[in-house]
Amino acid sequence: MIKRDYFLKKAEENTPPLFFEKIFPKSEKTIFLKGDSVLLDLGNHYVGHFSFDLDVVDDFFSAPVKVSIRFGEDMREIHDDHSQYRGTLSSSWLQEETFVLDHPQRFQLPRRYSCRYVQITVLETRRKTYLGNFVFTASSSANLSRLAPILTKDEELKEIDRVSCYTLKECMQSVFEDGPKRDRRLWTGDLRLEALANYHTFQNDALVRRCLYLLAAGDTNELGFLPSFIYETPRFYNGSSFLIDYALLFVVTLCDYYENTKDLQTVRDLLPVCKEQLNSFYRILDEDGVVAPQKGWYFFIDWCPGLRGRTALQGVYLYTLKRFVRLLYALDDKEKDFYEKEWADRKRISKDRLFNEEEGIFLNDADDGQRSVHSQVWMILGEALRGDEAKDALKKTMNQKDVLQPFTPYMRHYILEAMFLLGMKEEAVAYMKEIWGAMIRSGADTFYEVFVPGDPDFSPYKDRMINSLCHAWSCTPCYFIRKYLT
Amino acid sequence: MIKRDYFLKKAEENTPPLFFEKIFPKSEKTIFLKGDSVLLDLGNHYVGHFSFDLDVVDDFFSAPVKVSIRFGEDMREIHDDHSQYRGTLSSSWLQEETFVLDHPQRFQLPRRYSCRYVQITVLETRRKTYLGNFVFTASSSANLSRLAPILTKDEELKEIDRVSCYTLKECMQSVFEDGPKRDRRLWTGDLRLEALANYHTFQNDALVRRCLYLLAAGDTNELGFLPSFIYETPRFYNGSSFLIDYALLFVVTLCDYYENTKDLQTVRDLLPVCKEQLNSFYRILDEDGVVAPQKGWYFFIDWCPGLRGRTALQGVYLYTLKRFVRLLYALDDKEKDFYEKEWADRKRISKDRLFNEEEGIFLNDADDGQRSVHSQVWMILGEALRGDEAKDALKKTMNQKDVLQPFTPYMRHYILEAMFLLGMKEEAVAYMKEIWGAMIRSGADTFYEVFVPGDPDFSPYKDRMINSLCHAWSCTPCYFIRKYLT
Repeated sequence: MIKRDYFLKKAEENTPPLFFEKIFPKSEKTIFLKGDSVLLDLGNHYVGHFSFDLDVVDDFFSAPVKVSIRFGEDMREIHDDHSQYRGTLSSSWLQEETFVLDHPQRFQLPRRYSCRYVQITVLETRRKTYLGNFVFTASSSANLSRLAPILTKDEELKEIDRVSCYTLKECMQSVFEDGPKRDRRLWTGDLRLEALANYHTFQNDALVRRCLYLLAAGDTNELGFLPSFIYETPRFYNGSSFLIDYALLFVVTLCDYYENTKDLQTVRDLLPVCKEQLNSFYRILDEDGVVAPQKGWYFFIDWCPGLRGRTALQGVYLYTLKRFVRLLYALDDKEKDFYEKEWADRKRISKDRLFNEEEGIFLNDADDGQRSVHSQVWMILGEALRGDEAKDALKKTMNQKDVLQPFTPYMRHYILEAMFLLGMKEEAVAYMKEIWGAMIRSGADTFYEVFVPGDPDFSPYKDRMINSLCHAWSCTPCYFIRKYLT
Repeated sequence: MIKRDYFLKKAEENTPPLFFEKIFPKSEKTIFLKGDSVLLDLGNHYVGHFSFDLDVVDDFFSAPVKVSIRFGEDMREIHDDHSQYRGTLSSSWLQEETFVLDHPQRFQLPRRYSCRYVQITVLETRRKTYLGNFVFTASSSANLSRLAPILTKDEELKEIDRVSCYTLKECMQSVFEDGPKRDRRLWTGDLRLEALANYHTFQNDALVRRCLYLLAAGDTNELGFLPSFIYETPRFYNGSSFLIDYALLFVVTLCDYYENTKDLQTVRDLLPVCKEQLNSFYRILDEDGVVAPQKGWYFFIDWCPGLRGRTALQGVYLYTLKRFVRLLYALDDKEKDFYEKEWADRKRISKDRLFNEEEGIFLNDADDGQRSVHSQVWMILGEALRGDEAKDALKKTMNQKDVLQPFTPYMRHYILEAMFLLGMKEEAVAYMKEIWGAMIRSGADTFYEVFVPGDPDFSPYKDRMINSLCHAWSCTPCYFIRKYLT
């Protein structure tokens, strides 16, 4: 059996059962005439399928009934004028569809939606028409019964934890999805965060295992890196994006997985893939051992506009080596010394080349000089910077006007990870309340893909209508709270 | 078992198997970008389901594919601007729908369509998209292998026969439908014509039997008449229309059925229903024995604008009595003399009261004086007028400016029926060529619901877009050709 077939077989074996929950929203109306509309509130965000009964009232339909159904993650999405959509992503993600129904029937919409609100409008009917017995059948591969209550008296943290867990639950389907409304792919960077949160909440180790095998089944690009995402419905398909930091985070995800599960079989299967990723990175280092720009390379780090992430990427490498060395020690792998030396060498050279002693912070390469929080965070996580020097660098750069600040909840996760590594618990709690707490205060049922305090219309896709209001990479506060604060 | 349950059980037992035919239309295009469109020509009119493969080309879909699919019975329906539709029937009959498809798949549209042309437009996609393996799976309960070739050297009649049979085939589904695009109900008046054509073509007696039981299962109105149509999908439902001429034609349909099948069991089941219809009509006769206007009564006769049909309706009654007496004689029913006397009495009184000796034609009641072909035709069929007197009346009224002319192919059928009864074969052939031949010359693949020579935009529903271009009540030339002309 070739490698991909074996990995896909393993992924298949670990397909999770889905847990279903039926929500029965109340409707103010069950008899509809042409043009009538009703809004249903599911009471919370859900991912799943919607169905209802269509029936006659006092005479049979003399013509098909035409119904438009819109799903909104929040009320703004219910009121949006889709004809005005000008975003950069496909308008086909806007959750509204029209159905023509010939006969009385129980009608289940064929597609899955992600929403709290459902608006039904009867566009065309010639008779009084019954629409009722509305059911939203929510699905998730998260087993809610495995979620332990948390032991904190801080009510705000409790609420942040609750919404975090809920966001994760919504994204846990047949893979760890990125966002159940619009980006249902499995992405490496998001998987890493979801898996972390999962170990401390729903503990669906099989789902992590499945996702690791799926990503490992991908064909690497010419630089040797794994695809950053894959499709699995209706069949496996390689993603067309090869972000280098995500390729490294595949390794980190396996390290996390081993630490949380001690599952040697999976680690043995995937260790060669991890070494291949690290070796591929090794090949793009310059003479000194600092990562060098390559033709056609891409990395993510963050959506922060204008960010140049060479130093941050070098930090991701160091962080990955740190974690991988720990794994190799646990496995007593014969190459543990090689990677340990590599980590130590690259830490030293990174600091020599990229750290500005005068300012006490990392720059994005000596020639470049760009200052960003991102560089500090990843160098701290990679332990090129430690202790007070690390804390100082973080404090000197965070919330500084001339320094690029983290933008996505994804990057904010790594700030929190750095803070907890440095023992900055108080700052971390304040940061969670400042960012995730603010989302809740602004009415979020689940944590968003992007959140710019004070700019609720911001969208990385040039149109808020297409933003995802339930997004995996925002779900990690529950991980920090449950690991460090209870 | 109550009567309705028994009748519905009999209807269920006679549910016909459907015959399927797969049509594989050629496509000029299989790779689509946003906005691309393709037109498929099935080569003929078909009724059924459409399916195709949706797949990726060089990269996976990054977003759902949104496809609009339109079905046209002719090319005008492909080009129509549906936003301009202003007809009196529901726009939900316009055959165009939009689908949002998440993944590569074989997609079968859930609804049935009636068309020759299929236009597919990709409204939204972000990648080169494959749409291909187009299949239209046509259905019919007509068994084509039972259709005998016809023995006429008249090529035009041959063609009229071919299109007639084809029209009937399209309307033969789980019932004899009225029009497969838009009016899929079982109507009594249409059933009578379809059943007649069927005996001489596809010979699906079980389908006629099923339809008779379905209509007989209906609840009569306060005047005692059967509903003129019923719904059977997804469950039996009484139609809300009670046309008196259609109620009488139920009786005629059973008479035709017996003459063609000799199925005594069905006739015995339904004979009481027939007597009930005739008795109900008897109750609305005036002192002389001419049908009297009633509160809330309706009859059809024809769509001819301004037509007042009292005399025609009286003729339908006479015609029904004539046919029923013949049936009762065949059954040796003890009431045969009663109905025979009723027929004779009503014929006499009808002629006394409604025939204008001076003009030699029937008027619509003495006080009314409206002149119509309809009155002559039905009085001829009811044999209140016979021989040369009948031929004269028909000739005097047909194509006369001040006389109301038949409008629908349904009414035109009864002209042909009267002509053949009177031995006017030549006139009948000329008439078929004038009307049905003209439809073929104007490009019809199947015969239309309405056809006004010289006015292709005419619609009884105020908008041609909603006209049915394949309609049961136009299918009977094959009956006449096969019965009288070969």
